[in-house]
Formats: sequence, C-alpha cells, structure tokens
Amino acid sequence: MKTIDLSRGVPDPQSFPIDKLQALTVSALARDANRMLQYGPAFGYMPLREIIASWFDCAVPNVLVGNGSLEIFGFLCEAYLKPGDVVFVERPTYDRAVTTLKQQGVTIVGIDVNEDGICLDAFERELRRHTPKLVYLIPDFQNPTGVCTGLDARQAIIRLAREQRFLIVEDGPYGFLRYTGDPIPSIYSMAPDITLHLSSFTKLISPGVRTGFLVAPADAVQRVARIAERHYITPGVFAQGVVAAWCEDGQLPLQLERLRRLYTPRLDTCVQALERYLPGRLFVRPEGGFFTAVRLGAHIDERSLLSAAAEAGLTLSSGNAFFDADPGYQFLRLPFCALTEADIVQGIQRLGDVVSHLNMSARLEKTRIAT
Amino acid sequence: MKTIDLSRGVPDPQSFPIDKLQALTVSALARDANRMLQYGPAFGYMPLREIIASWFDCAVPNVLVGNGSLEIFGFLCEAYLKPGDVVFVERPTYDRAVTTLKQQGVTIVGIDVNEDGICLDAFERELRRHTPKLVYLIPDFQNPTGVCTGLDARQAIIRLAREQRFLIVEDGPYGFLRYTGDPIPSIYSMAPDITLHLSSFTKLISPGVRTGFLVAPADAVQRVARIAERHYITPGVFAQGVVAAWCEDGQLPLQLERLRRLYTPRLDTCVQALERYLPGRLFVRPEGGFFTAVRLGAHIDERSLLSAAAEAGLTLSSGNAFFDADPGYQFLRLPFCALTEADIVQGIQRLGDVVSHLNMSARLEKTRIAT
Repeated sequence: MKTIDLSRGVPDPQSFPIDKLQALTVSALARDANRMLQYGPAFGYMPLREIIASWFDCAVPNVLVGNGSLEIFGFLCEAYLKPGDVVFVERPTYDRAVTTLKQQGVTIVGIDVNEDGICLDAFERELRRHTPKLVYLIPDFQNPTGVCTGLDARQAIIRLAREQRFLIVEDGPYGFLRYTGDPIPSIYSMAPDITLHLSSFTKLISPGVRTGFLVAPADAVQRVARIAERHYITPGVFAQGVVAAWCEDGQLPLQLERLRRLYTPRLDTCVQALERYLPGRLFVRPEGGFFTAVRLGAHIDERSLLSAAAEAGLTLSSGNAFFDADPGYQFLRLPFCALTEADIVQGIQRLGDVVSHLNMSARLEKTRIAT
Repeated sequence: MKTIDLSRGVPDPQSFPIDKLQALTVSALARDANRMLQYGPAFGYMPLREIIASWFDCAVPNVLVGNGSLEIFGFLCEAYLKPGDVVFVERPTYDRAVTTLKQQGVTIVGIDVNEDGICLDAFERELRRHTPKLVYLIPDFQNPTGVCTGLDARQAIIRLAREQRFLIVEDGPYGFLRYTGDPIPSIYSMAPDITLHLSSFTKLISPGVRTGFLVAPADAVQRVARIAERHYITPGVFAQGVVAAWCEDGQLPLQLERLRRLYTPRLDTCVQALERYLPGRLFVRPEGGFFTAVRLGAHIDERSLLSAAAEAGLTLSSGNAFFDADPGYQFLRLPFCALTEADIVQGIQRLGDVVSHLNMSARLEKTRIAT
C-alpha cells in the first residue's frame, strides 16, 4: 500500500517553471551578472524591488527582498519586539511563525478563527486586557484553516490598530492564489502606513529559489535591512535576479493561470471527499490557497489518530501544533496542492475510516466504563 | 579624479564564471529540478554536501550548507553561546564576526595577532584568566591582516583546546586562495572532533550565490541545522544545485588557477607599492587571500585619515572596527583583489601622500605646542 502524505503544505513540483528558469537564468546572467553575482545591498536585488513596488503601488524604499518570508518575519521580530511584549496571532495559526515569536520571549495571545476569519469579539475582548505591539495575521486562505478574513473585519482591525497604535503584520503568501470568488483588498492596500506585508515566490515559482519579500513603511524596511545585513550581508541575489527576469518576462499571470488550472480541481476533489467521508467536519470551503482543514471530535486523541493513520498508510501532521491552547476539538490541516486527485480521494477515504474507527472505539470505551 | 576604493574586500567581477554558471544552471535543472526547486532539509543540497565531505575527508553528516558562512556562524553562536560566556578572537579580527558575537551578549577577549599569526603567549595568559567556550580564528590569510597562523601555533591551540575543553571555530574562506608558498594543514584536518570549520563559495564562485558551509562534528551540524530550519526552513537550494553542478564539472581547480593568475600580480603590485609609498608599514607580506594591511603611527587620528583620504579621492574603511581595544597604532586594511594594478599603485601612492601630510601636520602641531 502506497503511503499518502496529507501533511506537507508544499507546491506540486509539476508546477515548477523549469524551462523558463533555465532560459531566464541564461538571459539574466547575460544582462546583469555583476549585480546578480556580487555583494549587494541587504534590501535585495534592485530590479526585483522595483517589480514588487509596482505590484503594491508603492515606492522602492518600501520593499525588501530576502531569503524567504519566514526569515524576514524573524528579522522584523528582532527589530520590533523585546521580551515581555504582547503579540496577537490567530488561533490556529502558522506554527513556524509562533516558533519565531517565542524566540523573542514575547507573550503570544491567540484570537479564535472561525469560518468567517478572525473573531472580532474575541479580538476586542483581548484588546481590553492587553496592548499588543504587533498583530500577526494571515488574512487570505489562512495557514492552517484555509479561511479568508472578510473586508469588514479587515477594516475593523485597521481601525483598532489606529486607535490602539499597534502594527499589523500581514502574511500574504497565498494572496495571489485565489481559484474562485472575488478578491478582498489586502490590509496593506488599505493601511500601508501601519502594515508590514510579507509574501514570497515560494508558492508562485518554487520554494528552492528562497525569495520572499516585505512591503512596509520605509522606516520599517530600513530597520529590517539593518538586521538582515548583520545576519547575511546580502541575500541570494543570484536567485533574485532569475526571479526578476521571470517577472519581467511576463510569466506571473501565465503561471497563476497554470496554478489555478492545476490546483482548482484538487481543491474541489478534496472538499467533495471531505463532505463524503468526513461529513460535517470541514472547517470552511476555501476559495484558494493550499489548505483545507477539519474539526474532529474532542474525544479523539492526537497521538492515537496519527499512529492509526500511519498504520492505514496515511501521513498526517500534528493539528495541535497550530494552537497555543486546546481548542476543545481535534484539528487537522489537510494540504491538497501536491497530491493527485486520486490520492486525495484515497487519502481522505482512509482518514474517514480511521476517524470512524476511533469514534467507534471511543463509544465502546464509554459504554464499557458506563456498564 | 576617479575615486579609488581601498575599502571593500570583494572579488573582482571579472572572475565570476558567468558562462559556466549559465550552462550549468541549464544542465543542473534538467537533471535535478525537483530537489533544487522544492523545500529540502535544512542541512542543504545533498549532492553539494557530498562534494564538500569528499574535500574535507569526512562524512556527509559532518557537512551543512547554508546561505553564506556568516549566517552559519550566527546559528552556531545561537547553538553554543549564552550571555556571559567567553569567546576568544584574534585582535584584530573580522568585524562582522564580532558583531554577531555581541548579539549573543558574550564576553569577547581579543588575542593579539602579529606577523606570525596569533600570539601564543597572550593566548595562554588569557587562558589563565578566562575559560572560553569558543575560540574564533581565521588561520589562513586572516581578515583583516592577511597573516597565516603557522603549524606550530595551530598545534599548540589544538593542545590547549583539548586541555581546557573549548571548541575552535576555524573560519577558512581564504584557505583555497594561496598564491605562493606551502599550504599549512587546517585546524579541522588535525582536530576534526573539536573544530567547527566555516567556509564558502563567495571567494571561489561569487558572493551572489550565497553558498557557505560548515564542516564539523555531526552533533554540531545537527544543532546548527535545527536553528537553520527555525530561521529559514530550507536554504537556497536552487543556487546550491548550480554550485554543486559547477564542482561536479571539475571547475574548482580551473577557477583556482584563474584566481591565482588574476590576483597574484595584484598582491605583488600592492606589496611593492606599500614598500615604496609607506615604507616599514606593511603588517605582513601575505601569500594569498584578499588583504594586505598596514600599521600607521599612533598619532594618526582615524577620522582625520579617512576624511583626508576622501579628499584625495580614496575610499578607506575604518581600521578601528577590527579591534575590540586600541592597539596603540592606526590600523588599515587594504584589499587588493577587485582593483587593477594601475589603481592599486595610484591608490597607495595617494595613501602615502595623505599619511605623509598627516605626519607632517602632527609634527608641526607638536612643535607649535612645544614652543
């Protein structure tokens, strides 16, 4: 039996634009080798900063390009946070962001996310108890739930940020990856003076180019650049030169169309399989991104779930890792992008069987205890 | 008047193997795109780890490849040091390494370097006063002095490390760049169980590929990899794949020969010009690497020197930045690799004039005060 991996939120290698990267490396080096191969400013490769600035309708000093957005988030935490500061995050949220925050010794406050995105009531309640320095959000196709935070909630958070003087870190790597429905304006587009927008080419071109970026007020970009320089002097400008050439060649819209064609049927298949094999468990029906998620019963123990899944030929990742506190149910993130439709159906069918079996055992156990 | 830049320790762009990088990117992607473009282990691109392991006569688990050796040094500090720990460094030493150490809040103890390398007497004296956790050394063509630490001193330090139980961080980016004379065995080659050897492709291929590496005991590599993963998940494996293909293609020995042909006459010219225009000031006559250095009189004030140099069309970098304490003389690092021979002669002639002028002013000042 082939093991099916429902744990890894990675792109399908089939989507990597290999031919274009080959051709564009050759032409980029022919044109600008001295900048792509020499030391350069910690802000990143200038032509790529210009391209990103044009996307976000901002100026070049508002853009820094680095080796992936997680590391830039780390620099940003180093620049803005000191031990004891309070940071709000969604609950659940991206586990690696929480690990990065913990390194700074800050107090992390989770705000529940439901199918409409972050809960504003909970947000306001926590604001009466804490004064956050940063609020870390993934408003589009959130990792790990797949949820989008709606326009009203985004505007409300901006209003609260202005009143309470906190900065918003908007992590937006899935923003370009909408497969259906209407785009919602980014928080950065509505409040560029108080938003630090992170994104990357990992989900557009490939993780291996390690090219992420920050779009933010110029003083924030400068603070982050000073830290970036201290860490690595210059980011990976060879790869950044190739990425810039790829953008200049007009590849982004073509690639987005390709990704939509590749990932939309996988998302649809995934949702249908979840509705069939785990009815009533879907967190939300995502309109893009990399993730679906399910809420299972509270009585399901994660360790038993993961080991039963492994026996059934299914690799799952810890759902608890995305929470700073017990949500009162067992959560599971289910990435769908790197799997064929057949594997998605098969994987979710196996998951349905595993969950049914665990539910049955739990009921029997209960009956046994009761009798 | 064209300004001559005697401040930057960067390779000559003329040395960048552009054609080869173009061709080898194409073939590397044709062969192994899925590993070069996907997420991968924090240890770096496996074929490159294998190549480096073969150079250092060690096993793959002894090698980690990252985004430049400075950042790996930062991870290593994060893994091994806590505030209050003592670290010995050479005096003078690489300024960015000191900045990285300071971030960890450690006590930095400088050990004087003279024309024979690190002073063993001073080393032993400081060992009676402190118990260092790490000793950070650049034994080959040291940045900033150009000095090599001899075999006897290396062996003595290894003996002391075994007695006093400290680890040696051997920063060796210039180790391959010997233009004349006989190579001295690396500390790693003589004591692989207690040495963490850092190096990079910055001086071999180009800084822009951001590919540095650590060769160390397997447990050290694992500790550093855990920190690397927390920072950036995966290093720049696209660039690492190109670097690996370049090595597999047998380019390293050809490139080393090319670099020797390019840099040897520049070093010779630089030394001759220094002997002519700043007689008696040369720190050492280096046999390789990127740097020469001079000791100027104690009465020369750095700020006046740098501004007089700027007026004379000469960019210098701060010599004091390489010291944790006043050495009792004005130090200047003079990189020669990225300058033509004509510019080297012209630059050092200008420096000679500036220094003569400052010496004359100082003498006049002294006379004026005396009378």
